[in-house]
Amino acid sequence: MEQQLQNKRHTLAHLLAAAVIEQYPHAKLTLGPAIDNGFYYDIDFSDGVTPGADDLKSIQKGMKKLVNKWTEFTHAEVTADEARAQFAGNQFKLELIDEIEAKGEPISLYTCGGFTDLCRGGHCENPKADLAMEAFKLDKLAGAYWRGDEKNPMLTRIYGLAFETKEELVAYEFQIAEAKKRDHRKIGKELGLFSFSELVGPGLPLWSPKGTILRNEIDKFVTGLRMEKGYQLVTIPHLAKKALYETSGHWNKYSEDLFKVRAKEGDDHEEYVLKPMNCPHHTQIFDAEPRSYRDMPQRYAETTMVYRAEQSGELAGLTRVLSITQDDAHVFCRESQLREEIEAIWDIVDRFYGAFKFDLEVSLSFRDPENLDKYLGETKVWDDSEATMEAIAKERGAAYFVDPGEAAFYGPKLDFIARDSIGRKHQVATIQLDRQQPERFDLACTNENGEKERVVMIHAAIAGSLERFTAVLIEHLAGNFPFWLAPEQIAVIPVAEVHNEYAQGVHDQLTAAGFRSQIDTDNESMGKKVRTAKKNKLPYFLIIGDTDIANNTVTVESRDTGESIAMSLDDLLMKLQAEASV
Amino acid sequence: MEQQLQNKRHTLAHLLAAAVIEQYPHAKLTLGPAIDNGFYYDIDFSDGVTPGADDLKSIQKGMKKLVNKWTEFTHAEVTADEARAQFAGNQFKLELIDEIEAKGEPISLYTCGGFTDLCRGGHCENPKADLAMEAFKLDKLAGAYWRGDEKNPMLTRIYGLAFETKEELVAYEFQIAEAKKRDHRKIGKELGLFSFSELVGPGLPLWSPKGTILRNEIDKFVTGLRMEKGYQLVTIPHLAKKALYETSGHWNKYSEDLFKVRAKEGDDHEEYVLKPMNCPHHTQIFDAEPRSYRDMPQRYAETTMVYRAEQSGELAGLTRVLSITQDDAHVFCRESQLREEIEAIWDIVDRFYGAFKFDLEVSLSFRDPENLDKYLGETKVWDDSEATMEAIAKERGAAYFVDPGEAAFYGPKLDFIARDSIGRKHQVATIQLDRQQPERFDLACTNENGEKERVVMIHAAIAGSLERFTAVLIEHLAGNFPFWLAPEQIAVIPVAEVHNEYAQGVHDQLTAAGFRSQIDTDNESMGKKVRTAKKNKLPYFLIIGDTDIANNTVTVESRDTGESIAMSLDDLLMKLQAEASV
Repeated sequence: MEQQLQNKRHTLAHLLAAAVIEQYPHAKLTLGPAIDNGFYYDIDFSDGVTPGADDLKSIQKGMKKLVNKWTEFTHAEVTADEARAQFAGNQFKLELIDEIEAKGEPISLYTCGGFTDLCRGGHCENPKADLAMEAFKLDKLAGAYWRGDEKNPMLTRIYGLAFETKEELVAYEFQIAEAKKRDHRKIGKELGLFSFSELVGPGLPLWSPKGTILRNEIDKFVTGLRMEKGYQLVTIPHLAKKALYETSGHWNKYSEDLFKVRAKEGDDHEEYVLKPMNCPHHTQIFDAEPRSYRDMPQRYAETTMVYRAEQSGELAGLTRVLSITQDDAHVFCRESQLREEIEAIWDIVDRFYGAFKFDLEVSLSFRDPENLDKYLGETKVWDDSEATMEAIAKERGAAYFVDPGEAAFYGPKLDFIARDSIGRKHQVATIQLDRQQPERFDLACTNENGEKERVVMIHAAIAGSLERFTAVLIEHLAGNFPFWLAPEQIAVIPVAEVHNEYAQGVHDQLTAAGFRSQIDTDNESMGKKVRTAKKNKLPYFLIIGDTDIANNTVTVESRDTGESIAMSLDDLLMKLQAEASV
Repeated sequence: MEQQLQNKRHTLAHLLAAAVIEQYPHAKLTLGPAIDNGFYYDIDFSDGVTPGADDLKSIQKGMKKLVNKWTEFTHAEVTADEARAQFAGNQFKLELIDEIEAKGEPISLYTCGGFTDLCRGGHCENPKADLAMEAFKLDKLAGAYWRGDEKNPMLTRIYGLAFETKEELVAYEFQIAEAKKRDHRKIGKELGLFSFSELVGPGLPLWSPKGTILRNEIDKFVTGLRMEKGYQLVTIPHLAKKALYETSGHWNKYSEDLFKVRAKEGDDHEEYVLKPMNCPHHTQIFDAEPRSYRDMPQRYAETTMVYRAEQSGELAGLTRVLSITQDDAHVFCRESQLREEIEAIWDIVDRFYGAFKFDLEVSLSFRDPENLDKYLGETKVWDDSEATMEAIAKERGAAYFVDPGEAAFYGPKLDFIARDSIGRKHQVATIQLDRQQPERFDLACTNENGEKERVVMIHAAIAGSLERFTAVLIEHLAGNFPFWLAPEQIAVIPVAEVHNEYAQGVHDQLTAAGFRSQIDTDNESMGKKVRTAKKNKLPYFLIIGDTDIANNTVTVESRDTGESIAMSLDDLLMKLQAEASV
């Protein structure tokens, strides 16, 4: 968030507090920061009446009136006792004052339009002139514990939205409303893509036949792109001995997030772990045979579930699950092959996200220049790989930014960020260099001189997690999947029973051609059948009536254009064939 | 084993004992039963010299000499004390006599050709006339604890092979030798299909790119056959709350064999289980939506790993693993649909095993007629399903036998047994009716009258476990996979460097046509390249030389026929296309 906008939001929090105090003199103010989409203020109303949602309008009105007198902030540094006198009776502010005093920091008060608050600063210079009052609104009320601790009193949090312009506010509110309509949990349920069972447990989605088609088509797309680049599929189990993760280093760092596995007490299976990632297993496939420079690179791809022990309170739809299906790949290559391999992965990322019309930007996650000694490996090797990454980004004309300090300690990363159709950003694909696991697992090839040469690993997930990607995609497309991806592609709808036979013939030919066709011969009105097909978001539906039989045609209606066109079945088959692959 | 053959084997055990005593008078005999492929005798040689493998020939010679005097068995019941006197000094026989006495059973001695042994009987009447001495041979020596208990003294076990005819003995020895040559662990390593890692653990195979092609082609074949029968793919996680298995009933019965899963101590993930089978999860997909009779049957298929806690001492190659990939399917149907669904699965089983030229027989695993009350469900329903199964088997002209008492308590089963190319039998596919889980999970559809109707489940695995099936298939085919299945299908081998370019063109066209081609332009002799291709059991290799370039042909050599034929590349592509699917 830019400093200027942050200052405006912070100023609005002061203004909110002033308006509240005017209307609810018993209110005790606590803290009111700027946040990502505006600001809030946590207020204790326990000494009198508490405002409800209906009262926000009146408070907002108060703010708009007050702002006319807010033309200048004045600032005073005071002693702790002066501050205590100012906020006498407000135990929250007194607690804050004690803390600032204990830290030996200055205690500063800011005043505007006669309203004074304990504050570190960061405001508009002239609120009346600087604030675009039409670009803000009070949004909602919520409960919040003082300092987020449930042992503390419950306060009332008043949220406001605030942007630079009214257009931005409107756009934001549209995005929120759209996001609600597009919620993948809602659409997933309506389309019957996945479900959860209390017996199976939260965070463990069950994919219906339709949802499985969706997953598998996405996976086939990624796999196809990879095959063109010489990747090979491998298969690993979901278990490994704890020893694997001790060697990889994950046990020491993440053992709390790992699912531990045992059979009966005291038996010899006690030390197993449910895999939280695939790289350590893949190193063992690489290491199963001696590798010559002629065998390099080895590119292993596998779409497989990993398991991470999230707290179940955090699980939500498909965006946070316990069973994460990764479209994972690991390239084992020589240093000299790094650039070509990164380019190839980047090609795949571009083609994959391009097919869904996501805008991509990429973060070059590099070393922290202030802390160069915390990274594994030689400075020159790091310099080279970072330079290579930035050169590739430049050459491709990618929208990129360098993010210093975001590298893993074992290598720099490229993190791709997709902007969806309603403007939200999602971190998606990642390309990571790794020189640590090759070291820990002693992975090498024999070079042209017969010497052992340490290899480099590249971790490359494209969709990332199929669960999360599916959620993002559902919301990006509002469930309107393109033809090649739609679990149900075409509905054949006879107008009346007399058209059933012809319709069945059409359906059979579509099915024989490999399309996911369905025929609706239920004893319902045509209108209802069309509504069902629309509700299920089928890309095409064919309404078969007398004219079609007479002319030997089909009448095709498109979900996306709304157009309805009569054509021969052969023409339809050709049209669909063209849309059947990405 | 037939009684007559068993008697012969048992007689040979006596004869062995007699020959041993003749050559090793200090030997103490213990027990010598007939077994599946012959017989053995456990003998204590600790009072003198112990025979080695080289001495078996001489013992065998002794048996052949002795048998000429073995024309009649005589039998005597004696008192315990008389028996003790007979076997004085042999603590093993004395222990047996004590036991027989304690049980109050008769103590019987059998004598033939002057050799007497403590024995329950079951011999040839006239060994000299009845035994085909050319149909037996002493096989090997092994150590064996007295009564199988490692706290007891170690004895020497002498094994003999014995059959009715010499031909059967030769066939058996051939089978053993072939099985050894075909051992899937050996071939799997030679072809680089899978490996094990000490860090990952025993019983957890890692599938290389080549092995993964093999698995995936097998799976695609099964899945394709299922799609023709209206199956749909679904996707489930590998975890579930313990509650799922409590409801299904598996927790009570098999909890010792389940892998339990937990994150940190005391957190809310403590009650998870790694799935040992897929049916309970699949019930939850069926149950995620209300089902009408119009939706029935629901046929869910999924190839996914299940985990069972075998003791690691039991793990061997791919035949016993911890991570079992099942090509699993569950049909939820109405009673009235059972026959058609079973027929459809049987069709798939026949086509699948037929494609690999396995001979199939089927066991109808029915109720135990003596214990009808231990089965869940109404007698009439059982009668009907058993009758249906047998009627189908008859109608299809299947090789079948009824196996009473082998039904599960919740339904009868069809267990398919495949006979491999060297005569061994493997239990493979299974079709099981299940009325218990529909009951426990309350699975129903709404019938034509709007009433709730309990559904039936059919469990249907075709390959069964991909790991075990792959092992069986490797040994069945000695690693010579048919073209469509071979991980590497064609090797293109230029005779000399001058042929590389033309060879590359051929290789590129084969690859573009979707074949798994490889080109060997290493700086090696052609002979060595051909040997490599043969060692890797590629179905075809093309040797590209001057004549091919001059005539614009390729010379194709077949692994299976050894024939070498020149043809145009177009003809080759057509030929391969025809072999590319099952």
